[in-house]
Amino acid sequence: MCNACVIESVKTNMLSRRGLFRAAAAGAITAAAVGTGALSPAIAAAPASVTDLTHELYEEFPTFFGPQQFFREQKFNFKEHTFNLFELRYSEHTGTHMDAPLHFSADGMSVAEIPVENLVVPLAVIDIRQKAADDPDAQLTPDDLKAWIAANGEIPDNACIALNSGWSAHLGTDKFRNADAEGKMHFPGFHVEAVQALLETKAAGIAVDTLSLDYGISPDFATHNTWLPAGRWGLEAVANLDRLPAKGATLVVGAPKVRGGTGGPARVLALV
Amino acid sequence: MCNACVIESVKTNMLSRRGLFRAAAAGAITAAAVGTGALSPAIAAAPASVTDLTHELYEEFPTFFGPQQFFREQKFNFKEHTFNLFELRYSEHTGTHMDAPLHFSADGMSVAEIPVENLVVPLAVIDIRQKAADDPDAQLTPDDLKAWIAANGEIPDNACIALNSGWSAHLGTDKFRNADAEGKMHFPGFHVEAVQALLETKAAGIAVDTLSLDYGISPDFATHNTWLPAGRWGLEAVANLDRLPAKGATLVVGAPKVRGGTGGPARVLALV
Ligand SMILES: [Zn+2]
Ligand SMILES: [Zn+2]
Repeated sequence: MCNACVIESVKTNMLSRRGLFRAAAAGAITAAAVGTGALSPAIAAAPASVTDLTHELYEEFPTFFGPQQFFREQKFNFKEHTFNLFELRYSEHTGTHMDAPLHFSADGMSVAEIPVENLVVPLAVIDIRQKAADDPDAQLTPDDLKAWIAANGEIPDNACIALNSGWSAHLGTDKFRNADAEGKMHFPGFHVEAVQALLETKAAGIAVDTLSLDYGISPDFATHNTWLPAGRWGLEAVANLDRLPAKGATLVVGAPKVRGGTGGPARVLALV
Repeated sequence: MCNACVIESVKTNMLSRRGLFRAAAAGAITAAAVGTGALSPAIAAAPASVTDLTHELYEEFPTFFGPQQFFREQKFNFKEHTFNLFELRYSEHTGTHMDAPLHFSADGMSVAEIPVENLVVPLAVIDIRQKAADDPDAQLTPDDLKAWIAANGEIPDNACIALNSGWSAHLGTDKFRNADAEGKMHFPGFHVEAVQALLETKAAGIAVDTLSLDYGISPDFATHNTWLPAGRWGLEAVANLDRLPAKGATLVVGAPKVRGGTGGPARVLALV
């Protein structure tokens, strides 16, 4: 089954689920199957949905550096002013957020300069939960990429490759940062050799469910320094990757459009 | 032609344009047409795309209240620290942004509480550019809604209804706020009777290309006060509505997910 066919069928399912033109959509699925080859019944029947890959952002959201990075002040309140309004103050690299190329380069693309075509992309999810459970210093390696490709085909052009280490389940506990007695953190990330291999593809971005593209004990941001200056983007602290298929979801990265921004809290959605 | 059919065909076009499975996608269009009725050749041939409805956010972005609302401070710089990072400070209601129900209610939904199904929705674009050019105090009225429905069919469930007044072309000039000698602003908005009529539909949100859901000279936020407490959302200062069809685009609202937030700068994309 081709990618176009899968994505089309799930989009059609999504419309159907909303109760719009249910009968017509079902007709379209059948017809499309005739036109492009047999649809997997499992995919055709799957409940289509929008999945939120974004954690809520709040004052105590854990940070890479440790101290609080998100603050707010209420400037207007409903009782007194008939409306509510907050002023927010935060580091760009807080919560579920994007790393733009400019984050780790002198003059790479800012978050506002990334072409929108690179913000609506095929999503590849690579599951390393078992090895991350065994070893918090686990990394996604070229072998993990090869295993995904063997099962799912080549990395699609423009794709985002997401590391599902199971770490988002630790949010709200000390295990999310998992700092040792010396303050060194222990959580999974992309091995520098994996992103070197991905630079040979037309992938647009990578995503992690931890606080950094690099694993926690990295001494040198090797993965950041390899991937971002090459004009690719990253997403950190994404949620709910375990709700998605290995292949077939479309990722929509609602990255902020701050002029000259190096990234920032984003709304990240997956259409399945 | 049904909505499901249009959206499916443009999605297929989008995949095709990216060079993925071009032949298979063309097959799918033909097959889908057989299954659901004749496809308009104009739509089937239209270049499919992602359209960015977001203005860049920067220090001098014009504000409803007048004074600057967006500030940043560079905390790390590439030369000294090998990476760049800014701290941002801004009012939630700055730039292209969302108004959540909580903005104008005591306990309505925060921006983080809006169901994700209400952030990926059919987009209806209503063009009032001519009357806005004739009169900056023009409003989108129930008659404008009726004219759109007569031409395009009922308002789709979950839709966002967008007012295209042509005002986004004035960004960067005094005409965007268009304040008179007394400081009263003159720009278009939704008439309160139009949103009252929309409350009879299952529309999820409304969008304006100006600084407020209410027209500039509104003395009482009548539209905000009618629409938002009813659990619907708004988008203000959206861009590029003139690049979209009246019907058929899918809007993706990359609203921030700030716990308890009343709205905030959003990345707004349209899939056509
Ligand atoms: Zn970051
Ligand atoms: Zn607002």
